[in-house]
Amino acid sequence: MKKSLLENIHTPKDLHLLSQKDLPQLAKELREFIINIVATKEGHLGASLGVVELTIALHYVFNTLVDQLIWDVGHQAYGHKILTGRKAVFHTNRQLGGISGFPNRAESAYDTFGVGHASTSISAALGMAIASRLQGDLKKQHIAVIGDASIAGGMAFEGLNHAGVSKANLLVILNDNAIGIDPSVGALKMYLTNVKKGTQKQDNIFEALNFDYSGPIDGHDIDAVISELERLKTVEGPKFLHIITTKGKGLRQAEKDQVKYHAPGKFDAKTGDLAVKSTEIQAPKYQDVFGHTIVELAQNNPKIVGITPAMPTGSSLKYMMEALPDRAFDVGIAEQHAVTLAAGMATQGLIPFCNIYSTFLQRAYDQIIHDVALQNLPVIFCLDRAGLVGEDGATHHGVYDLSYLRCIPNLIIFAPRNEMELRNIMYTAQLGLDHPIAIRYPRGRGKIIDWKQPFSKIEIGEALQLKQGENIAILSIGNMAYNVSEAIENLNVSHYDMRFVKPLDEKILHDICKGYTTIITIEDNGINGGFGSAILEFMALHNYKNTIKVLGIPDVFIEHGKVTELQKAIHLDPDSLRILIEGIVC
Amino acid sequence: MKKSLLENIHTPKDLHLLSQKDLPQLAKELREFIINIVATKEGHLGASLGVVELTIALHYVFNTLVDQLIWDVGHQAYGHKILTGRKAVFHTNRQLGGISGFPNRAESAYDTFGVGHASTSISAALGMAIASRLQGDLKKQHIAVIGDASIAGGMAFEGLNHAGVSKANLLVILNDNAIGIDPSVGALKMYLTNVKKGTQKQDNIFEALNFDYSGPIDGHDIDAVISELERLKTVEGPKFLHIITTKGKGLRQAEKDQVKYHAPGKFDAKTGDLAVKSTEIQAPKYQDVFGHTIVELAQNNPKIVGITPAMPTGSSLKYMMEALPDRAFDVGIAEQHAVTLAAGMATQGLIPFCNIYSTFLQRAYDQIIHDVALQNLPVIFCLDRAGLVGEDGATHHGVYDLSYLRCIPNLIIFAPRNEMELRNIMYTAQLGLDHPIAIRYPRGRGKIIDWKQPFSKIEIGEALQLKQGENIAILSIGNMAYNVSEAIENLNVSHYDMRFVKPLDEKILHDICKGYTTIITIEDNGINGGFGSAILEFMALHNYKNTIKVLGIPDVFIEHGKVTELQKAIHLDPDSLRILIEGIVC
Repeated sequence: MKKSLLENIHTPKDLHLLSQKDLPQLAKELREFIINIVATKEGHLGASLGVVELTIALHYVFNTLVDQLIWDVGHQAYGHKILTGRKAVFHTNRQLGGISGFPNRAESAYDTFGVGHASTSISAALGMAIASRLQGDLKKQHIAVIGDASIAGGMAFEGLNHAGVSKANLLVILNDNAIGIDPSVGALKMYLTNVKKGTQKQDNIFEALNFDYSGPIDGHDIDAVISELERLKTVEGPKFLHIITTKGKGLRQAEKDQVKYHAPGKFDAKTGDLAVKSTEIQAPKYQDVFGHTIVELAQNNPKIVGITPAMPTGSSLKYMMEALPDRAFDVGIAEQHAVTLAAGMATQGLIPFCNIYSTFLQRAYDQIIHDVALQNLPVIFCLDRAGLVGEDGATHHGVYDLSYLRCIPNLIIFAPRNEMELRNIMYTAQLGLDHPIAIRYPRGRGKIIDWKQPFSKIEIGEALQLKQGENIAILSIGNMAYNVSEAIENLNVSHYDMRFVKPLDEKILHDICKGYTTIITIEDNGINGGFGSAILEFMALHNYKNTIKVLGIPDVFIEHGKVTELQKAIHLDPDSLRILIEGIVC
Repeated sequence: MKKSLLENIHTPKDLHLLSQKDLPQLAKELREFIINIVATKEGHLGASLGVVELTIALHYVFNTLVDQLIWDVGHQAYGHKILTGRKAVFHTNRQLGGISGFPNRAESAYDTFGVGHASTSISAALGMAIASRLQGDLKKQHIAVIGDASIAGGMAFEGLNHAGVSKANLLVILNDNAIGIDPSVGALKMYLTNVKKGTQKQDNIFEALNFDYSGPIDGHDIDAVISELERLKTVEGPKFLHIITTKGKGLRQAEKDQVKYHAPGKFDAKTGDLAVKSTEIQAPKYQDVFGHTIVELAQNNPKIVGITPAMPTGSSLKYMMEALPDRAFDVGIAEQHAVTLAAGMATQGLIPFCNIYSTFLQRAYDQIIHDVALQNLPVIFCLDRAGLVGEDGATHHGVYDLSYLRCIPNLIIFAPRNEMELRNIMYTAQLGLDHPIAIRYPRGRGKIIDWKQPFSKIEIGEALQLKQGENIAILSIGNMAYNVSEAIENLNVSHYDMRFVKPLDEKILHDICKGYTTIITIEDNGINGGFGSAILEFMALHNYKNTIKVLGIPDVFIEHGKVTELQKAIHLDPDSLRILIEGIVC
């Protein structure tokens, strides 16, 4: 058996001791290492397999403790983590207390900039490069590795536009595999395809932005990559390297079905076969309730259109893209554009469902205010992955939306307790509202297996009482209702699903404030300015002085782990809630 | 005297009756009309003067009640307003109850999309164009007019990237005058300059994005513009017209000093001379306190850098750009990039002051959370134009920041009561904080003429008592303290300047809750989730049951008018406050 090279690589220093001819063997071992662990521990597979050679080449050519290396998004950084001191703990990836699934400054000096959301790397690297220049260090290298899906995000263009007139020592590496999580879209992708095919003339778009351009080269040819990086090390100012890679490289199925193998769950490390799914009948994922329901509604209402910024699979808008391709739009990683596009469509009488993960809607905050709400255009926002999202961690939790949306005039905010509520609010919204609406729902599965029931209309601003009790009223929002129901199973307290964070059901709130001594609010949003604060504001306005306890996400960033584990850690799990409520009852 | 053509133009229908050879004369009259009114009524001058010919040509060639015309930002739309039914009320521009300074759907059917912030027009027009296509209307035209400063914003790139692969009937007109409010910057601007000079080869960046490109043509040659628009009307799919104009065209001084004449205040319509400024000694503008103070601090602290997204003049960062050009950066209309650039710089030990208007920081919301706060990087945000901004109106009021920032962990939020406080918090922040900080201050002048006092350090989280009284404690934030002071001059109530919205001064709050029966909070931010809510949350947490009244901006969009008029309308002016507080005292 051939001696393992990877075994002896603990930091890039060890890598520098290898001869260049050994690197293809190391690449093979690194791929196997990633595949073997992700096969059992789950995680993001395809992106990291695609940049194994690039990862080794970067750490081989540069001094990555001094030179600053930034991985855009960071899904592709597993190889980087393994080569930079985290091989032994890599099996804890994305687990509670384990390493993060993304580069993270708190985790390693080799992780120069925390990532998770797309298109940030060029701006961050440029900031570092300008800093180095100001500090008189003209040798230090600053490298942003960015995929072709991410570079289409507007923020990346802003970074390129500034970098092109700086003299900063910046190297942008475009890792072009023609896919993000779903296949890349847009005019730039078409352009890059033409560059690859040689049908595009030389005077290219990155040169137009004043970058020293080289490429495209084969990103799996480690010698070619190394020799180009060595050359670029000596070039001053902003430079751009275009490399072509294959997402999932080295695992046949992952190369073939790149969408599925982006984050495939458990699979057979040898064959690549996905683990057999449980045959147990499960409640659906919220995203699928959205995906199937929009198709059902759109088939009956020709005004409905669907928009996703680069998440056809994650949002399940793919079902509409298949069924009604003319009316469902993947606009790429372009949340800002997605929202204002929806606004433009709404002015012409269409009914746009704009589906964006809660955490990514942060990217389009101004557009919600300025283009949608200010004009009171009835855009229907579907915010998937609201609340704690689990293993993706701090960059991805959708725990600010209720706060950042609640201050926007004209906007209706609804959180469905379960799949039926999601379905019915979607039905209600497309009947025609006088306002835009944000519907926020969690990642993962709901509770109701038999969810595909006839539609029924929801009254805007109407809360529901779920349980009648005494003295204490618990007001929950969204699927936190289920944690509450479990917690109070044997307690004589009342429980209301408020459903609408805005407008509040003022009638029921007056009854609650008059009928109970103590109110407890529960939400999976930050406690600063969220749903609980809305109740506090109502009480202050009407001079109610009930005792009130506001429960939600504390004012700190929450790390990664299973949602149930994270809920336990912040005392929002059923057990913690029961103990807390019992303490008040007594 | 030559007969006036403009006199008889009430809507574009009247324009269509004119012969094309009359249009230069109309252009002359329209320019004079704009100049004469803006000279006495104030407003944005230069941008509209630059597009007089384009405006006439667009309304002459297209049926702008059916075809959809969108002006990016909208500063340049005065001619459009005058030709589309608002000539008689144009003198009410930007006044309370008068017409808006920007296109506004509520104001006219010719204003197809409300604007104010930059770079939205392509997305909105594309949304409309896709809608028309879906509705089977393949004749309808959709036109976005966007300046060279705005098209460099990332969102515009996102729109272009999507449009290029659509078959939508979209015409993007690049109004290239090489200036926004300040001169345009960036690699794209340099590229466009080369195109104009003919030193750029033909295969251009917009063609690369799959647009049918034409230009550059002289935007003041009305016949050339009309004939090109007529041709483009017959071209299907996405097309791009590059026109060259001069900002301020037709008024000598405005052409010469384009920055000053962007919004020159009152001036002599004949000579162009600016109105003589009052010689009365006035308190400084907050922006100048920022601008001069950062220079003073940076001269003593080499780690300080300054960043503005396209607002050197508006933010007064221009003083630093003059004094320390290597350390002050205008990154163009690129708020997202500005924030993450600052984050990158902070990782290398620099101390970045990132100055962004409150309303424009909405564009970089995700970057504050994901790139700055999550990594706890000590970026210093200076949010100018916080609170009500006056005549710019609903698109520009900075009345959400306290709500949208307060839910972000790690972030310190401070609002200076006056110029000294702004100066001292800037001094304090650059001494080194463990967290990022947002310093939000208003548009316009402060109160203290003799503001340039020696620096003194502010304790993070420390509030100040401004007045001692009984029963009632008024808690204000920022310069609302002055309205309160005036209101309570003759009342025996206490007044606290809380200064920090986060972290709250919990010690003083405990004393307040124990020492007064009634608490009144006052802020110039939305009452949903703002400063008052922070106090409510504190009280709920500690089970205080004082009577509390939360005053601030109501949950509606506030239109344009003088700040004092707007404050009166929402009862935040000193008189209204006095009446309210007297009502509680009695």
